[in-house]
Amino acid sequence: MNRQVILTSRPAGVAQAENFAVISAESLPLGPGQLRIRNQFLSVEPAMRGWIADLGNYSAPVAIGSVMRALAAGEVIESTAEGWHAGDQVCGWFGWQEEAVVAPDAILRRIAERDLSPSLSLGVLGINGVTALLALTRIGEPQPGETVVVSTAAGGVGSAVGQIAKLLGCRTVAITGGPEKVTQCLTEFGYDAAIDYKADGLNEALAAACPNGIDVYFDNTAGVISDAVMPQLAIGARVVVCGTASLTQWNPWPSGPRVERHLLVKRARMQGFVIFDHMDLWEGAVARLAGWVRDGKLRYSEEILEGIEACPDALAGLYRGENKGKRLIRV
Amino acid sequence: MNRQVILTSRPAGVAQAENFAVISAESLPLGPGQLRIRNQFLSVEPAMRGWIADLGNYSAPVAIGSVMRALAAGEVIESTAEGWHAGDQVCGWFGWQEEAVVAPDAILRRIAERDLSPSLSLGVLGINGVTALLALTRIGEPQPGETVVVSTAAGGVGSAVGQIAKLLGCRTVAITGGPEKVTQCLTEFGYDAAIDYKADGLNEALAAACPNGIDVYFDNTAGVISDAVMPQLAIGARVVVCGTASLTQWNPWPSGPRVERHLLVKRARMQGFVIFDHMDLWEGAVARLAGWVRDGKLRYSEEILEGIEACPDALAGLYRGENKGKRLIRV
Repeated sequence: MNRQVILTSRPAGVAQAENFAVISAESLPLGPGQLRIRNQFLSVEPAMRGWIADLGNYSAPVAIGSVMRALAAGEVIESTAEGWHAGDQVCGWFGWQEEAVVAPDAILRRIAERDLSPSLSLGVLGINGVTALLALTRIGEPQPGETVVVSTAAGGVGSAVGQIAKLLGCRTVAITGGPEKVTQCLTEFGYDAAIDYKADGLNEALAAACPNGIDVYFDNTAGVISDAVMPQLAIGARVVVCGTASLTQWNPWPSGPRVERHLLVKRARMQGFVIFDHMDLWEGAVARLAGWVRDGKLRYSEEILEGIEACPDALAGLYRGENKGKRLIRV
Repeated sequence: MNRQVILTSRPAGVAQAENFAVISAESLPLGPGQLRIRNQFLSVEPAMRGWIADLGNYSAPVAIGSVMRALAAGEVIESTAEGWHAGDQVCGWFGWQEEAVVAPDAILRRIAERDLSPSLSLGVLGINGVTALLALTRIGEPQPGETVVVSTAAGGVGSAVGQIAKLLGCRTVAITGGPEKVTQCLTEFGYDAAIDYKADGLNEALAAACPNGIDVYFDNTAGVISDAVMPQLAIGARVVVCGTASLTQWNPWPSGPRVERHLLVKRARMQGFVIFDHMDLWEGAVARLAGWVRDGKLRYSEEILEGIEACPDALAGLYRGENKGKRLIRV
């Protein structure tokens, strides 16, 4: 039997535990050109809100009654597909389930870093790390000496952005929530300054941490945090729009202070980044990130929940801000 | 005597006639390395609101009691500056006055197109035309076959943007105000479609005019017009933030629908453009524009008000939307 997490109803905002069910299904027989994968780690990520939402997005919504779309890392245990063999380590679109039967196009990559945990392919060597590196370098274009501000700075993407920006010679400023994460940003991820947005005075704290303005803003939140950052952009600033974690409702569409004047006066650029547009750069990015990980220059934080029963509430928990590091489920 | 228009008080929003005074001052003696210029045409432009505003902007505010900052075109009538002689046609920062005594650094350029009216150097061969060409090509990056939407499409910048985009092989869609300007956009400036934003149904009209979405949005207005455009951006769209004409108050800062999600889902880019960052490209741009003007491929519309007494109310009139074409004062 194969235990699976099914989407049972479509939430208005972030999916809660009651929008899912854990069921047992019979294992599928393997057709020609297919692989059976035993999942080892399942990913839980903010983007899942978008995959579930029934509105214009960059991917079709997960259908009611189907296995929740998710990246996972696992091992090929049976294969009728050319070039794939039992024992191969892979990560890809295997869903929130114990076992997946897939065609090779569901595989994102063969995990080459056998010296590192396969869980890393869902975090610092996966979408998080690759997004951090490519969005920062290709859209943020940080130059040595510039000031880079990161929202959700202790998160899976943010923590990598901060460290990579530092490796590239920038001054790095974290925006995060709570004193514990502030400490983590400073001691673990090496930020030059860290601001607790839940404490008073975000505007003043940003001004103090960024005396020459903000050259790159790596935005994972939108909302009131971005509203505080935008007026403090430096001339020629780049805003990387990577996520909108602070906005949980789209009906009615959320409002906020207009950005046009900031962009005009500062000759600034604001641009959205979706990793799936940059798949051709994936392997090169992973190789660079893995090198930094092995050298101890790129630290990461994982929070591993045990058992597939943890899945249904795991996404809502992300949006409650309770996770400490990249959230994963060990199957 | 030299008649001048002086800023007498700082307005909260757009400067009105009562914020200026027309005075007569004695002509200044010419110092060494200076030029005396007899102004022929004075420019009136939306950016003046920003030059007057006492808040963070890309140029220092015009001081109370000083001649209103303005571009003008005129003739050198006396010179002690090397390389400049009586009879030279020039345009530059000569202010709202009949006669200016300046150092050469106030000169933007020597007008080489003696076959064309010097007024053009304040419009289609000046900031408007050069802004249109450079902002469209460098930030908008229009590709043949793409759909380009222009706000204030009949204005000095907008009308040039629409025609240049068309010359570059794009489908062009005008957003403008009133049936008269709609007709002008279609017949005079060659737009493929023109929408009257004052009539009902901007969303529906945009959807009908842009069935494949909007690849380039050249924005001179911000505000509710942009709010209608943003949800209809195509994947990979570019938004050129060139002006914010529809927003007249900055205290309190205006709010509107958030753009982050549109930029993210559409992997779109939104970037501010200020012409003064691109002065090295000016002469090349003017040469290209002048060629199109001589060939009859780039049409322009001028509205020439007579006499310096017209200056004080001319700017407020722009924001009342009453001008027909590039507004100029003939001295």
